[in-house]
Amino acid sequence: MALKRVYRFWEQADPLKKKLAAQNRDLKDLLGGKGSGLMLMTNAGIPVPPGFTITTDTCNEYYAAGKQFPEGLEEEIKEAVADLESRVGKTFGDPDNPLLVSVRSGSKFSMPGMMDTVLNLGMNDEVAKGMIRLTGNPRFVWDAYRRFVMMFGDVVMGVDRSKFEACLAQVKEEEGVTADLDVSAEGMKRVVELEKEVYERELGEAFPAAAQEQLMASVRAVFDSWNNPRAITYRNINKIPHNLGTAVNVQMMVFGNMGNDSGTGVAFTRSPSNGEKKLFGEFLPNAQGEDVVAGIRTPYSIDEMSTFDGGAQDEAEKAAMREVWSRVAEEFKVVAERLERYFEDVQDIEFTVERGKLWILQTRNGKRTGVAAVRIAVDMVDEGIVTPDRALLQVEAETLPHLLVPQFDPAAVEAARNNPEVLVAIGTGASPGAAAGRVVFSAEDAIEWTNRGERVILVRHETSPDDIGGMERAQGFLTVFGGATSHAAVVGRQLGKPAVVGCGALRLDEEAKQFTVDSKVVKEGDYISISGSTGEVFLGDLPTAPSEIVRVWYGQMKPEESMMYGYYSRFMEWVDARRKLGVRANADRPDTANDALIRGAEGVGLCRTEHMFFGEDRIRTFQCMIVAESAEERAKWAEELLPHQRNDFEGILRVMDGLPVIIRLLDPPLHEFLPREDADVAEVARMTGRTPDDIRALSRQLHEMNPMLGHRGCRLGVTFPEIYRMQAKAIFQAACALKKAGKNPKPEVMIPLVGIPEELEYTKRDVIEVAEEVIKETGVEVEYMVGTMIEVPRACVVAGDIARSAEFFSFGTNDLTQTVFAFSRDDAEGKFLPTYISKGVLQVDPFIVLDRRGVGRLMEIAIKEGREANPNLEVGICGQHGGDPQSIEFCHLVGLDYVSCDPPLVPVARLAAAQAQINHPRD
Amino acid sequence: MALKRVYRFWEQADPLKKKLAAQNRDLKDLLGGKGSGLMLMTNAGIPVPPGFTITTDTCNEYYAAGKQFPEGLEEEIKEAVADLESRVGKTFGDPDNPLLVSVRSGSKFSMPGMMDTVLNLGMNDEVAKGMIRLTGNPRFVWDAYRRFVMMFGDVVMGVDRSKFEACLAQVKEEEGVTADLDVSAEGMKRVVELEKEVYERELGEAFPAAAQEQLMASVRAVFDSWNNPRAITYRNINKIPHNLGTAVNVQMMVFGNMGNDSGTGVAFTRSPSNGEKKLFGEFLPNAQGEDVVAGIRTPYSIDEMSTFDGGAQDEAEKAAMREVWSRVAEEFKVVAERLERYFEDVQDIEFTVERGKLWILQTRNGKRTGVAAVRIAVDMVDEGIVTPDRALLQVEAETLPHLLVPQFDPAAVEAARNNPEVLVAIGTGASPGAAAGRVVFSAEDAIEWTNRGERVILVRHETSPDDIGGMERAQGFLTVFGGATSHAAVVGRQLGKPAVVGCGALRLDEEAKQFTVDSKVVKEGDYISISGSTGEVFLGDLPTAPSEIVRVWYGQMKPEESMMYGYYSRFMEWVDARRKLGVRANADRPDTANDALIRGAEGVGLCRTEHMFFGEDRIRTFQCMIVAESAEERAKWAEELLPHQRNDFEGILRVMDGLPVIIRLLDPPLHEFLPREDADVAEVARMTGRTPDDIRALSRQLHEMNPMLGHRGCRLGVTFPEIYRMQAKAIFQAACALKKAGKNPKPEVMIPLVGIPEELEYTKRDVIEVAEEVIKETGVEVEYMVGTMIEVPRACVVAGDIARSAEFFSFGTNDLTQTVFAFSRDDAEGKFLPTYISKGVLQVDPFIVLDRRGVGRLMEIAIKEGREANPNLEVGICGQHGGDPQSIEFCHLVGLDYVSCDPPLVPVARLAAAQAQINHPRD
Repeated sequence: MALKRVYRFWEQADPLKKKLAAQNRDLKDLLGGKGSGLMLMTNAGIPVPPGFTITTDTCNEYYAAGKQFPEGLEEEIKEAVADLESRVGKTFGDPDNPLLVSVRSGSKFSMPGMMDTVLNLGMNDEVAKGMIRLTGNPRFVWDAYRRFVMMFGDVVMGVDRSKFEACLAQVKEEEGVTADLDVSAEGMKRVVELEKEVYERELGEAFPAAAQEQLMASVRAVFDSWNNPRAITYRNINKIPHNLGTAVNVQMMVFGNMGNDSGTGVAFTRSPSNGEKKLFGEFLPNAQGEDVVAGIRTPYSIDEMSTFDGGAQDEAEKAAMREVWSRVAEEFKVVAERLERYFEDVQDIEFTVERGKLWILQTRNGKRTGVAAVRIAVDMVDEGIVTPDRALLQVEAETLPHLLVPQFDPAAVEAARNNPEVLVAIGTGASPGAAAGRVVFSAEDAIEWTNRGERVILVRHETSPDDIGGMERAQGFLTVFGGATSHAAVVGRQLGKPAVVGCGALRLDEEAKQFTVDSKVVKEGDYISISGSTGEVFLGDLPTAPSEIVRVWYGQMKPEESMMYGYYSRFMEWVDARRKLGVRANADRPDTANDALIRGAEGVGLCRTEHMFFGEDRIRTFQCMIVAESAEERAKWAEELLPHQRNDFEGILRVMDGLPVIIRLLDPPLHEFLPREDADVAEVARMTGRTPDDIRALSRQLHEMNPMLGHRGCRLGVTFPEIYRMQAKAIFQAACALKKAGKNPKPEVMIPLVGIPEELEYTKRDVIEVAEEVIKETGVEVEYMVGTMIEVPRACVVAGDIARSAEFFSFGTNDLTQTVFAFSRDDAEGKFLPTYISKGVLQVDPFIVLDRRGVGRLMEIAIKEGREANPNLEVGICGQHGGDPQSIEFCHLVGLDYVSCDPPLVPVARLAAAQAQINHPRD
Repeated sequence: MALKRVYRFWEQADPLKKKLAAQNRDLKDLLGGKGSGLMLMTNAGIPVPPGFTITTDTCNEYYAAGKQFPEGLEEEIKEAVADLESRVGKTFGDPDNPLLVSVRSGSKFSMPGMMDTVLNLGMNDEVAKGMIRLTGNPRFVWDAYRRFVMMFGDVVMGVDRSKFEACLAQVKEEEGVTADLDVSAEGMKRVVELEKEVYERELGEAFPAAAQEQLMASVRAVFDSWNNPRAITYRNINKIPHNLGTAVNVQMMVFGNMGNDSGTGVAFTRSPSNGEKKLFGEFLPNAQGEDVVAGIRTPYSIDEMSTFDGGAQDEAEKAAMREVWSRVAEEFKVVAERLERYFEDVQDIEFTVERGKLWILQTRNGKRTGVAAVRIAVDMVDEGIVTPDRALLQVEAETLPHLLVPQFDPAAVEAARNNPEVLVAIGTGASPGAAAGRVVFSAEDAIEWTNRGERVILVRHETSPDDIGGMERAQGFLTVFGGATSHAAVVGRQLGKPAVVGCGALRLDEEAKQFTVDSKVVKEGDYISISGSTGEVFLGDLPTAPSEIVRVWYGQMKPEESMMYGYYSRFMEWVDARRKLGVRANADRPDTANDALIRGAEGVGLCRTEHMFFGEDRIRTFQCMIVAESAEERAKWAEELLPHQRNDFEGILRVMDGLPVIIRLLDPPLHEFLPREDADVAEVARMTGRTPDDIRALSRQLHEMNPMLGHRGCRLGVTFPEIYRMQAKAIFQAACALKKAGKNPKPEVMIPLVGIPEELEYTKRDVIEVAEEVIKETGVEVEYMVGTMIEVPRACVVAGDIARSAEFFSFGTNDLTQTVFAFSRDDAEGKFLPTYISKGVLQVDPFIVLDRRGVGRLMEIAIKEGREANPNLEVGICGQHGGDPQSIEFCHLVGLDYVSCDPPLVPVARLAAAQAQINHPRD
């Protein structure tokens, strides 16, 4: 049998697949990605416009022969064209029923840099005239024709595109119009003529009228494009072999503007907003795709298609049209289901009907909300369309919190969105959910207004740790500056409150307590509503409703009353059955620990202790401890703090009964806690018997050039052991008390910022000594571990030595990213990171998506050498990356035991972990 | 032949060595380090007190037998004791001629944690009485006895040492004295009695009087100490096998207080201050070592020994004594030479003469000044004592700058040193050399006084970059705060000026322009003199003289007139012939580049460009550039800076003609350059057409939380390309002009702070574009390279990718140490590093000695992967570590091409590189 170089879409795929399998190849190897897809869809009964594919092997033959077509190829293509003509009942060059085709490249891997599409191939003067008769739309035809001449001249023959564009420009000037759309039919015809002149002038030959000639030139251009410089560079970068070759796809063009039995449309196979199983979309009769996009005519709902009468006057014609459209609607429904099964996902479909015949032009997985995604996933499993694994992959992990946060009333928000007087600005939605309330401009005001029973939205240039008190009271936050990792965003996600950040349209005057946006002035007390999901800012008090799922969790609704609760519960069961990574939460308080628990956290991965010292009942004592002049004085103040800390720890350990709670000892530099206001300084001076000047002098002395790299973390533990000893005492007194009360506390003490094994040894000795004392005193045994953060580059390369005295590692990837890059996050995100991303020096912000190449590589060294030294080492992550799906995949790949993230992100992490296991199974 | 377990020092070592070699062992394996040394010295004719060694194998037998002595051991020891008795003519337990011995452990490797020494073993009541007769010094004898009881009771029998110490305390109270020295002979005798009571009470048996019994118990104690917990821990940490076992060394005690034909002394074999070949030292007749230390009697010079007459009255006795001592002196001279040959180095010897017989108690390599070291090394080669390699190892590299800096007049400084009214304080000598001048307290005053022709010493709490102008004028610096890496120290070493830092005894009042030390007040204009070598601070104007070598270099003296110049030159020739590492210098100006060149630098490894912008003629323009609001405005100001920068570069390239000069583009954050004073702000506002408030607002905006990790280095190059482009233009215009003038400039452009390969690619593109433009314009070809600092942890782990666009790497280990440890140097050295070192968390300051485990490991990754990606990659270091010998050894080990250091340290680096090659040869 002669070598077969051309395959029709409608040929049987199965025997070919078998034959290729025997050569260790698959369909894509021979037909390219696009070609194999078209064949398989055609085989599956999807009405894609027919056509054929010239194999990748042919491309290689072409190169092997010094860029000569192999003998017989042209004949074989002619046969395929003839088959295509007879299959579709159209003929190349026939004015009464012309066959036009598209020609596209298509290699095994999608490859930008190769030849783009040539559309409308087969067009010439005669065909154009015929098509005008058929469509009654000369402007459309001439427009299609002039596009073809330009594409062919540019893409196939290599004439500078701008020379063709000049033709259109010239005609526009002649007609005195500026928009392409305003050029007349006659004008477009003239563009074709001008372009053909350009073609002849540039190439020294007339534009080819013969379709076969056009086709063969296009095939050659596709083959040539395989080795153009951009394509070669792309393959080098992406390590794609250079000997794969490209296939050529030739496919019939279809037109929706061939009369009222033609049309075009788009549709989702299910609701993208709530997941309901029902076609959603619209269609426009007697129109091409561009017309839908242009929005000149109002399309019909897809529901109306089955009863559409073509707008005909004549009853008979109406009936005929109804018959056509009801058949098309019926077929579309079947095809839509088939596409869902074929792609195992909800589909967003572009289709065209040409003279009553349905063609699928394009289909892709449909974008959807989190709510829709979960419902669709579960439904598709129930319908037998997908396996649970596949269903888990359908849902974007980041969208899960959308199911759990309050939302605006759908009708109200839709109305607001369409009213530019109400939708006044769009910032970055940095923490999902909807909130409405009165505007306040300071944390103090937030507290004051909420004390009066008001709901408030806190609006600031940017928030800072000083605003925490007010942020806890507000419904949500709106800031002028900052990005997805700014203080407001981070706190928003931690607290599960909506945050809109970086809303630069606001002119904010915090002193005058008002902001302006365009000409609108919003004053303190005015209502606004914000969506932390979309970044929208509305004027007025839009109604919101809490998530049904959360209402069920808190007993405000019965599980069986909430359909979404059912969907969510089943979905998360599959998630948990699949994942290998544990998921813990970062939580500092009993209430946030509880939020984490109901969201599925399996423990606390990071309980920071510094926030605890800011409480009004203890900050002064803590400040006195800092200014102590001797170890004894320091120990005395520490002793006063002990009962507070013990309460803090008891609360969290009680909520997390039976689950591990990693408590990090004091981390930030002490100067962060010092009093600044005169009254506060005076109070500390009074309590410690010093002068205010002494206190201020000490503040200056504690000042640091680079606090991030300063006197903090375990460095405090080494220099002022009294503080860590007090914290350890509080932890173990709390744990022992709970144990006595029949609970099962599992504290794990974490030492921050270790880079030298001796730092851990030194501080660990103190912790164990205190623990054993407390255990001995109270007479109850408590299980506990002592471990360390890995957040300093040196810790990664001496991890083996550290692991000899650590029972666990927890990667602090926020600080690790800062130190590995030598980026101060505070400075970088405001100053040069945006430029880095816009100039392509970085692809993403490494504080959001873990940098695998640098930070990740150091983590891998630490994990490998840590586990070699201590096979029982527990290894997790507690940086912000623990809530980011791409980063979680990396954590899964490198074999971490768990990730820890903010409570609202616990469901995200669970799903991302399951997806990672599906895509990259590990034991 | 039965297994031999005991070896006498005087047995032939050679046959034993051969026998052991056949078993792949050496003498140390069998006899331990100490035992083999004693045997070899005895074999070499050194009169060490005789004795014997029990083998390490015996220790292993002891453990193998469940801590039982092997059969026959005691007999063999008795035989050895008998041999020893007959060899030395003394007998265990003989009151008229008692043999006393010391017992020491000694394994293959020196091992703290094992048994210390037991002295005076063999003592009992009868022996004590005999010794009193012999020495006429009952207090000495009873003191020796009570020490023996305590050591034996504590070290051998395990009784708590404090119980014995209490006996002495009790007697002191009884006698009403506080110092041990004031206890009477009777009192010491009573202490012995009390201690024996303690011994009996604690152990239930009497203190053993029999020497053999004492000895066997001590041998057992040494064996047991091999496996005490401290020793096991030490071996674990240092990876010493546990099966080596320890030897036991038994050695005769000798006494220098047996009459006037006895004595004790210490001597250097050559002058430790200038290296002259002549014995230097002192002796004290009829005395023990303690007496010399106690300083109660004035010792004689070693020169007087040969004519010493024992202070006898009787002429016959005088003659007899002279005969004894002249013989001893003659023997000592011979032994001293023998010791030098044996240890191949100058020796610092402790000796004792017992009844006219010379014994060498201890000898070690003598400490010496740099001047002495170089002369001794060269002389020893000439005398055929050592090879040049060995001579190079004798000299501590750090001491070389001492040959090149001014020194005080020796007599004047000696007198000053002995006068507490003149030597008023000692700080840390942080940059060697001597300087004297009038005290000033500010950089401005330094400039003013030197303008009047005065020499000044700048005294500050600590210096900062603002003081540079004044520091360049001052003779030296004295600071109250700071350590070896403080600003004053670093600048001192860079400028080759003496610096005394951390001189906490000074109470400094900068405003009142005076300091107080104790009760002395020193005011502005008073003379002081400082030694940056010793840290000494003297009142008054001590005379100083420049180094002869430097005078020769600068043509102020003929080479043949300076003996030291000859020594130094020959020595450095050997150095350069041996080393593999290149040595370059960090220099920013033509004069410092020249200093480096005459000190042997082979190029500039780091030319910082930021200091250049502080010049009065350009700082304002630079500030205008910083506050520019557009790229155009920035480029305009940059263009004004261009001629200045071109001059800067031309100067350095001219000095370094034909040698590589690595120029680092701007590195520090821009806010460091901004104007602070109102007048300066106003001026910048005027020049740029802004308001002062604008300028201040911009300053605030540029402020950073962690400037070390902020908007600096290549981040400036990416965000403000105009600055780097201007610098590149200046470099290549300078280079092309020189080339045209017949010179051979070799500029290498270095991009700082790269952590992302794309940062280098982006900035390199700009540099090359500018370079090619300039080369094209000027029409001369200039060789150049573009490379990068490696100073960010991420750069180390992505070094392979960076090396694809870098022609060289230069490790910036200052910043790399900061980021690898997450230590801000400014903050760490003042706050927690001292505590870390005092608590043993760190052994050394990693900013001084390169951290091999952490920083070094990352460097190794970078070197390996960088060279794999780019085999022509040139790799060096330009951090402070490039001048530290231990760090230079590491640089040699990991295969760097060169180190770069401050000019005064160039000789240090050359020698350290040669030593590294001798100890660890590489290709």
